[in-house]
Amino acid sequence: MTVRRPTPDDRFSFGLWTVGWTGQDPFGSASRPALDPTEYVGRLAELGAWGITFHDNDVFAFDADEAEREKAVGRVKDAADAAGLVIEMVTTNTFSHPVFKDGGLTSNDRGVRRFGLRKVLRAVDIAASVGASTFVMWGGREGSEYDGSKDVHAAHERYKEGLDTVAGYIKSQGYDLRIGLEPKPNEPRGDIFLPTAGHALALIGELEHGDIVGLNPETGHEQMANLNYTHTIGQALWHDKLFHIDLNGQRGLKYDQDLVFGHGDLISAFFTVDLLENGFPATPDGPRYTGPRHFDYKPSRTEHMDGVWSSAEACMSTYIALAEKAKAFRADARVQEAMTYAGLFELAEPTLGEGETVADLLAGDDGFDPEKAAERDFGFVALQQLAVEHLIG
Amino acid sequence: MTVRRPTPDDRFSFGLWTVGWTGQDPFGSASRPALDPTEYVGRLAELGAWGITFHDNDVFAFDADEAEREKAVGRVKDAADAAGLVIEMVTTNTFSHPVFKDGGLTSNDRGVRRFGLRKVLRAVDIAASVGASTFVMWGGREGSEYDGSKDVHAAHERYKEGLDTVAGYIKSQGYDLRIGLEPKPNEPRGDIFLPTAGHALALIGELEHGDIVGLNPETGHEQMANLNYTHTIGQALWHDKLFHIDLNGQRGLKYDQDLVFGHGDLISAFFTVDLLENGFPATPDGPRYTGPRHFDYKPSRTEHMDGVWSSAEACMSTYIALAEKAKAFRADARVQEAMTYAGLFELAEPTLGEGETVADLLAGDDGFDPEKAAERDFGFVALQQLAVEHLIG
Amino acid sequence: MTVRRPTPDDRFSFGLWTVGWTGQDPFGSASRPALDPTEYVGRLAELGAWGITFHDNDVFAFDADEAEREKAVGRVKDAADAAGLVIEMVTTNTFSHPVFKDGGLTSNDRGVRRFGLRKVLRAVDIAASVGASTFVMWGGREGSEYDGSKDVHAAHERYKEGLDTVAGYIKSQGYDLRIGLEPKPNEPRGDIFLPTAGHALALIGELEHGDIVGLNPETGHEQMANLNYTHTIGQALWHDKLFHIDLNGQRGLKYDQDLVFGHGDLISAFFTVDLLENGFPATPDGPRYTGPRHFDYKPSRTEHMDGVWSSAEACMSTYIALAEKAKAFRADARVQEAMTYAGLFELAEPTLGEGETVADLLAGDDGFDPEKAAERDFGFVALQQLAVEHLIG
Amino acid sequence: MTVRRPTPDDRFSFGLWTVGWTGQDPFGSASRPALDPTEYVGRLAELGAWGITFHDNDVFAFDADEAEREKAVGRVKDAADAAGLVIEMVTTNTFSHPVFKDGGLTSNDRGVRRFGLRKVLRAVDIAASVGASTFVMWGGREGSEYDGSKDVHAAHERYKEGLDTVAGYIKSQGYDLRIGLEPKPNEPRGDIFLPTAGHALALIGELEHGDIVGLNPETGHEQMANLNYTHTIGQALWHDKLFHIDLNGQRGLKYDQDLVFGHGDLISAFFTVDLLENGFPATPDGPRYTGPRHFDYKPSRTEHMDGVWSSAEACMSTYIALAEKAKAFRADARVQEAMTYAGLFELAEPTLGEGETVADLLAGDDGFDPEKAAERDFGFVALQQLAVEHLIG
Repeated sequence: MTVRRPTPDDRFSFGLWTVGWTGQDPFGSASRPALDPTEYVGRLAELGAWGITFHDNDVFAFDADEAEREKAVGRVKDAADAAGLVIEMVTTNTFSHPVFKDGGLTSNDRGVRRFGLRKVLRAVDIAASVGASTFVMWGGREGSEYDGSKDVHAAHERYKEGLDTVAGYIKSQGYDLRIGLEPKPNEPRGDIFLPTAGHALALIGELEHGDIVGLNPETGHEQMANLNYTHTIGQALWHDKLFHIDLNGQRGLKYDQDLVFGHGDLISAFFTVDLLENGFPATPDGPRYTGPRHFDYKPSRTEHMDGVWSSAEACMSTYIALAEKAKAFRADARVQEAMTYAGLFELAEPTLGEGETVADLLAGDDGFDPEKAAERDFGFVALQQLAVEHLIG
Repeated sequence: MTVRRPTPDDRFSFGLWTVGWTGQDPFGSASRPALDPTEYVGRLAELGAWGITFHDNDVFAFDADEAEREKAVGRVKDAADAAGLVIEMVTTNTFSHPVFKDGGLTSNDRGVRRFGLRKVLRAVDIAASVGASTFVMWGGREGSEYDGSKDVHAAHERYKEGLDTVAGYIKSQGYDLRIGLEPKPNEPRGDIFLPTAGHALALIGELEHGDIVGLNPETGHEQMANLNYTHTIGQALWHDKLFHIDLNGQRGLKYDQDLVFGHGDLISAFFTVDLLENGFPATPDGPRYTGPRHFDYKPSRTEHMDGVWSSAEACMSTYIALAEKAKAFRADARVQEAMTYAGLFELAEPTLGEGETVADLLAGDDGFDPEKAAERDFGFVALQQLAVEHLIG
Repeated sequence: MTVRRPTPDDRFSFGLWTVGWTGQDPFGSASRPALDPTEYVGRLAELGAWGITFHDNDVFAFDADEAEREKAVGRVKDAADAAGLVIEMVTTNTFSHPVFKDGGLTSNDRGVRRFGLRKVLRAVDIAASVGASTFVMWGGREGSEYDGSKDVHAAHERYKEGLDTVAGYIKSQGYDLRIGLEPKPNEPRGDIFLPTAGHALALIGELEHGDIVGLNPETGHEQMANLNYTHTIGQALWHDKLFHIDLNGQRGLKYDQDLVFGHGDLISAFFTVDLLENGFPATPDGPRYTGPRHFDYKPSRTEHMDGVWSSAEACMSTYIALAEKAKAFRADARVQEAMTYAGLFELAEPTLGEGETVADLLAGDDGFDPEKAAERDFGFVALQQLAVEHLIG
Repeated sequence: MTVRRPTPDDRFSFGLWTVGWTGQDPFGSASRPALDPTEYVGRLAELGAWGITFHDNDVFAFDADEAEREKAVGRVKDAADAAGLVIEMVTTNTFSHPVFKDGGLTSNDRGVRRFGLRKVLRAVDIAASVGASTFVMWGGREGSEYDGSKDVHAAHERYKEGLDTVAGYIKSQGYDLRIGLEPKPNEPRGDIFLPTAGHALALIGELEHGDIVGLNPETGHEQMANLNYTHTIGQALWHDKLFHIDLNGQRGLKYDQDLVFGHGDLISAFFTVDLLENGFPATPDGPRYTGPRHFDYKPSRTEHMDGVWSSAEACMSTYIALAEKAKAFRADARVQEAMTYAGLFELAEPTLGEGETVADLLAGDDGFDPEKAAERDFGFVALQQLAVEHLIG
């Protein structure tokens, strides 16, 4: 496989915490040195990345004062500018410090909530100052281990209050920023609120400022809820809420693996890229994803710095390869034929005819014979096999 | 444990397909005889149930003509009346016949969709005719095994079209009915659309007639998505969309087990009942579930008719026992104290003060010391242990 | 992808119950006609298969008498001979009829156990009579839903008794047959005994006639226990117990999907084929799998007869494609280099030197510096990416 | 629930790393201070514990020299003696330091394997020196994320070599110690070798010194493989290999939660205690667990020191409560009757009669009527409900 090198036009971006992960995990200490954030920037640019992203505390310490914060952010911004990289997204860390052990926006402790909200708002300012277009909010500690420890109604009230406060602040400041909520079902909490893209979409529907709040769904997070990631981003697009995306790999129901994109469920990755690059097959004018291709992965702890960079490259080259294959898949006449055979395009046609009323529908049975219709061969397996052939061909 | 017998005031209801399940599963044929639906009705009343529910094809054959349908429904209605049972919910089967092998409302085959929609509408008429208050829709075949076999956008368009057509029809007919969507992540399809309560709530928010569309979440279905059922019904209540409920038991991530309520995750069942019976602890005036206590379970295939009835009794007696324990739990001064200690009531307090602006919030730090706040002992484990003590005490 | 057509040399075999599955599932009735077993045989030969396999009751009814059984088996044997197909494996159905609802060899009902054992023994005779080399035993109903319903010790005693009886009978009859146990964690029982390959291997170690008892591990079954299938067959080979194999696809922790081989976890399928075809990379003289490439899958219920055959073809063509890729992977100098870099071959070297005693080991520290060794870059991600490149290249 | 206080006769023991866990997790830093190991000892004694256990590096630093090690172990031993606590088990940490990032006994790096083996052997000396009876080996880093990064055959060769070396050393030194292997399916590695109790039992069967090697199965670890823990310890007892036990709680397929015993699957915990305390119901003279009741749990990160101690108390008081309930369950005449009805005792009866040959069995059919036998009502649900009544009664 000779895959072309990535270019900024691909709009690949990486969290500084991804290549910068030192390998500390629940059972082990760091296996790689902690480097200064700026050290990653140039290298990512060399590899062909287009942008970077970060949490506030990837760049400065939790207890940094205003001057330290400004200086640290300035250094990263300068490094990015020098390397020609965009800072496309900024997020905030409301999960690492033990003050957030019961959450930031939904902690049972009101003092913590107020502190957390301030921290988020200050990170919004940073996002705006560095020119980010998305502000991601992952509420990793918003949740519980025990059903009795949370009033779930109050938790959603507070989540709504927090999100509306942040979104309202963005509007009031005139920032050109949208919020991307990142759902996750569990880890580090036993059960996290807004566990899936669906739950987050539902909450967004109740917000006062929901127009600038959408999703940042992560491959592995949805899969940790035993769900189909392509369906997830499909429904998010249908709601016009796929604001940002976190691509990585996960192998089944276990801890959050954050593998290289494509090193998890490869067929699912193929269809994810197909949807991101080519849109819905039967809805050519339907919603399309136009945001960055952002990787939120972790180089395995077994790797040292060489492995960090080869893993970052792997994310991009696999994406490019899958994108090329997805183009060829769509362009293949056999595929188009199989899609037609499968009725894929037929699903775009409304069930009721134009102007048809329910009374009309009920009046006639169209001569429909269910026994005969039941014998239809949809050819879904053959279509899937065509996809596999393109994928491995 | 001496548990009082159930009475109609408990509002326990059972699907005819639950006690009527003959034990046919993917690897085996029926282990119990198929009885006439009316044979179940009297026995359920004797056991203390209040209501029954059914799919259209639990009562008459898929290909029954109008006269057969009316007669069959009439017999069940008469039997229910005679036994003093309410028919509180009716639903439709758009999953058993092979014509629905790719779904009813979202089949790639438009003819099937039209046929499915008609079938649903006719079942709505039945629901209204027997006095049901809820019409459940479980789209068990709406989904796919292969990402390539569905245009996810079109599928959601068709789902919306279908639901709005049904809801609009209910309104147009003046029926006193509300729709309860029943999410499920998979089985019998590889991935089902609207896989969780969250996804269904999100879709409902996009409907034209969403005001009469809510949820019927099933214990095991949410757990098959690795999610917390108490959180699920809590969020549904927050959205004011918990229209109906399906109680049963599931032991982990596997096929849909439909065990007796309480025979799955017992601690979760305790908190489920606590929420249903006592409402949110910190939000006493918050939304409350007022619908039936409906069991959607299957007597294990190892049981013959004695086991059918003892399992139905078990569902009710465990519910009653848990309800009594949940009352005692809430009334226990130690529990109230532990809840206060845990900050449970504090979460109901808005994060911002009355009239406080974001500018106010950002202006001061309240003298909050994160290092000190991080040392707070929430006592969640102790509170959970109090719950366990009440549960097994 | 142009994949050569399969030939008998590939030793592909199919269960008659795979292509013959009519599509009946827990929520739906058959979507395809039930054909006579002989109708499948010729078609499988045309597609390039080498062998077939069956359960006794795939070929004759549960209550068939001796004459009917003989006639039915004879017809299948004749059809296979005519088509040039081998009947490489026979198995018995001790799970469909409700008499086996609590198991065959471990039912709490001794009469059932005796009946089950007789049924198994008679199927052994059939296996021998048609020239099969493997007799698979899947104890799908051996298990429980409730911990209280089984004495687990007694269950293992009975399992051992049953297996030793069958194995002893094989020996006493002089049959050239080996038993392949097929583990599965759940479905149709809540928990099945011998849930994984490991548990079955452990039991085999306790058998009197364990020398002719090994494993028939199924891809999806091991994955339903959240386990790595390549590790499974690797450990089975290490124990010299990989007697037979069931290849298919599964997408995560849900009901038993029995997808086409390769339509589940594709990367895992690649390494499965690599191990089957090329053996252990660092143990060239190590144990090798020499049995049939047997597919135990189900054509999706959405497919009619065309889909049945295209899915059978897909199993074989994906296997062939993966086998070719795996050869190229091993032959690639970059891969060999990356394997060396990763220390893959080094693992074959004993930890202790030849003749080295523990005392020797403890006496010196080899000058080993753990801090320095901790900085080793294993290059596992790069090696995986080479595999992905070969897979999709 | 008034539960009596634990006493040393209960033989409850705790890992120092359990109450001593500071709350650092993959997404957050410590929420509690690190105390000196000796500080935990007295408190555990006060609470009624009987013993403690530790990893070498719970007590001294990874790079401690011989003098520091001796001194540190001596201090813990003195503290235990003073408090009247037994040090019943010692284990070694071959997972935290990055040198072990690819495992200890199966690292691809031979130098690491040699270093790891030395570390294990030295920990064995410590175990013997403090009078422990069990030496646990959890190979948490023995495994892989990528199938290509390991020769699975070589890995099992090295695992065997390592275990036999350690077991042989124990014998050669005359230590009164047995090894308990602790299986786990994943975390911190993507897939861990010996993922379940079954796999470990199988390996033990191949060891030269397997007589002193058995299992230390952990509740949550087996459940992370989607398996039934009571079945796990039942099969381990059947193999006479349940040498030690790790009790805790887990809620489904996610990261390793290490909840308080009983705060996971409570019904499973009831049957676990029932088996540990009362043995197999139908095999009264069968193998019994006689080892310590060891808790391997983590006080939730939301708790400060008060929560540490209340959670340790909760583990013990729930165990005692379940033990009392299990005694009452067994003594209840209705339960004995239901067990008889369910055929529980019948399973202890051999399937073949005394002296009966296979030929005898095949000769007659006992007049067995499968259709009639299929109608047997096993009453498993009713028996389970009796268990639930005892549990919550």
